[in-house]
Amino acid sequence: MRVFIAGVDGYLGFPLAQHLTARGHAVAGADMLLRRQWVDEVGGQSAIPVYAIEERLEAFRERNTANLTFRKGDFLDYPFILGFLNDFQPDAIVHLGEMPSAPYSMIDQAHAVFTQKNNVLGNLNILWAMREVCPNAHLVKLGTMGEYGTPNVDIPEGFFEIEYRGRKDTLPFPRQAGSFYHWSKVHDSGNTMFACRIWGLRSTDIMQGVVFGTQIDAMGDDPRLRSRLDFDQCFGTAINRFCCQAVIGHPLTLYGLGGQTRGFLPLRDSIQCLTIAVENPPTAGEYRVFNQFEECYTVEELAYKVQRAAADLGLSVTIHHYDNPRKEQERHYMNPDRNHLIDLGYKPTHDVHAELKIMLKDLMPHRERIEQKRDVLVPDIRWDGTRRRSEIIDEQLSAVK
Amino acid sequence: MRVFIAGVDGYLGFPLAQHLTARGHAVAGADMLLRRQWVDEVGGQSAIPVYAIEERLEAFRERNTANLTFRKGDFLDYPFILGFLNDFQPDAIVHLGEMPSAPYSMIDQAHAVFTQKNNVLGNLNILWAMREVCPNAHLVKLGTMGEYGTPNVDIPEGFFEIEYRGRKDTLPFPRQAGSFYHWSKVHDSGNTMFACRIWGLRSTDIMQGVVFGTQIDAMGDDPRLRSRLDFDQCFGTAINRFCCQAVIGHPLTLYGLGGQTRGFLPLRDSIQCLTIAVENPPTAGEYRVFNQFEECYTVEELAYKVQRAAADLGLSVTIHHYDNPRKEQERHYMNPDRNHLIDLGYKPTHDVHAELKIMLKDLMPHRERIEQKRDVLVPDIRWDGTRRRSEIIDEQLSAVK
Repeated sequence: MRVFIAGVDGYLGFPLAQHLTARGHAVAGADMLLRRQWVDEVGGQSAIPVYAIEERLEAFRERNTANLTFRKGDFLDYPFILGFLNDFQPDAIVHLGEMPSAPYSMIDQAHAVFTQKNNVLGNLNILWAMREVCPNAHLVKLGTMGEYGTPNVDIPEGFFEIEYRGRKDTLPFPRQAGSFYHWSKVHDSGNTMFACRIWGLRSTDIMQGVVFGTQIDAMGDDPRLRSRLDFDQCFGTAINRFCCQAVIGHPLTLYGLGGQTRGFLPLRDSIQCLTIAVENPPTAGEYRVFNQFEECYTVEELAYKVQRAAADLGLSVTIHHYDNPRKEQERHYMNPDRNHLIDLGYKPTHDVHAELKIMLKDLMPHRERIEQKRDVLVPDIRWDGTRRRSEIIDEQLSAVK
Repeated sequence: MRVFIAGVDGYLGFPLAQHLTARGHAVAGADMLLRRQWVDEVGGQSAIPVYAIEERLEAFRERNTANLTFRKGDFLDYPFILGFLNDFQPDAIVHLGEMPSAPYSMIDQAHAVFTQKNNVLGNLNILWAMREVCPNAHLVKLGTMGEYGTPNVDIPEGFFEIEYRGRKDTLPFPRQAGSFYHWSKVHDSGNTMFACRIWGLRSTDIMQGVVFGTQIDAMGDDPRLRSRLDFDQCFGTAINRFCCQAVIGHPLTLYGLGGQTRGFLPLRDSIQCLTIAVENPPTAGEYRVFNQFEECYTVEELAYKVQRAAADLGLSVTIHHYDNPRKEQERHYMNPDRNHLIDLGYKPTHDVHAELKIMLKDLMPHRERIEQKRDVLVPDIRWDGTRRRSEIIDEQLSAVK
């Protein structure tokens, strides 16, 4: 198949390009390289060194004896995306090219507006370009489990059949996102569902859990082929951040009670699932939603898992509760479905302990890079629109208990 | 109260300013005057002459012995909206300042992107500005009944309590909008609900039906104080378009079967309802949804109503079915609630026949202005992204029947 990756320079995009190429697909990708700028802007850096795009592409060619067709460009630039899709004529488009951070979107008005502009209008451009030059292609769109929020009922995959006042219908499951970033993904979902309905486009909308990890099988040892691994408050996801904290002896930063329950999955599962979606397209006009995660855990459970894995490697790790900079439920019901991917052959990696040890080992040589940016491990971007560094609240919490 | 109207030069904004001022409120308003440009762009013009903003403001002053504090500016310009709200310190903000046309948003990529950019980011700017300079103000936000689409169950006001797999929750009612314009309103609703939750803002989100009519009581006879009345395929709503067609002897243009059922309300009811919302603010942090319409009718029923009202005035009117340029259900269930406004004292105008006669009489002196733009009465903007003028399909339909 011919697969186009929007956001090919990112945490998921670059490993996905390697995995798809290893499976014999022809891959092209576009990226504006903005993720590198954003991480820099918030004072972070990738724990694992990220090479210049030219070096990445050269290493890719050496390993795969195949080109990764790359063009630098912005999805807000309609002629750019239209021209690239027209030239490449993809069978599938995997859209990973959005600003992915909740805290970044909450910094201030400018960041909130940038996030929704970049994400919603970029996706809208891809939909219009598909209609114009590749209407039979399959859009695999990266959304987030965070679109659903934390309802007090089970979370189906996108749609649910309900009875209301004696009548029945199958309706989109309501969305209650928790940041302007998460809302941008909700807006994308609406626009994408609508484009499938009116233009007969086909799309798989991925409600993905929180990804962690440093490795996929197809990656090889060339450092130029490694994916990035961020640990700052904006672009570092929970487990990645915990592991980076663990290797430099910084306390793991639980926000509030730590009872927030989320779906999580290792990087290798994310790549596996995206590939399954690509290789099993829906029919024309079909808009389907996949919930994509390995298992649900509380953030506190994960902190203990990281602590145990670190202990195996001789690292002593402490865990502290910090006052929560976000506005979210800290204890809640969470029971999402994830049958669609399993039905198509997804085999979840159940050994999180082993995965965490791989990560910690991968990160230990880069301790110094994490130490250099120690300041960005404790959050200060608050959901009320202000900036204040979170403080340890273990004592207040134990007083409450 | 001090009321700020975003979009004060529009069809609803200018009469609302008059009505609120007549009730003793201090009113300020902002507008970029874009509606005038858009109608011009699509080849239309207001059937009722619209005076320059300076003349409108002068007439306003003469009639009300009060100023309408006006600044020209764009809601995408954050310093503009922040500065104006900070200076005026409103108790309520009525946000009518969005691009309001479904067909306009469907013309092409550029119009779809413009619509969502203008509407979603403009509203987001207002939310951030409120947080910064008037967090206790009440945002009365104009949405549309079209956000809900046409589900096969009753439509509650924004939220519904459901039982799903044995558990209960009160959730936002799912949205299934029918154009990129309608989706922009859905996106606004999500962002606004979220801002209330995290910042304690208060908002009434108005899911309004289709407005028609030329008059409100407070308007007076000065032609400079009249509101606009569009009849083109983009900015002319169904009944307004039918009445303009009736007075020049053009057939009424039913799209498809004409069984599309919508909530409708006269201009005077819209102004009454918006005023009720303004004068009965929610509590801090509350996000409430009002469904705002007088009654539901099929578009075909309305065409017959216009035909009968026109007959009373000696006008002979024909009705034709045109092939539907939109992609929508032409026969469907539609039973929305509208209790919240009734509970607060909304008295619906039930005499649609009388209202239509007023409209037709108001429009008859402007026949020539409608005749000049006769070409924009039959739609050619199609939901598949192409342009093709709709044709009369009465024969095909009767063959089917």
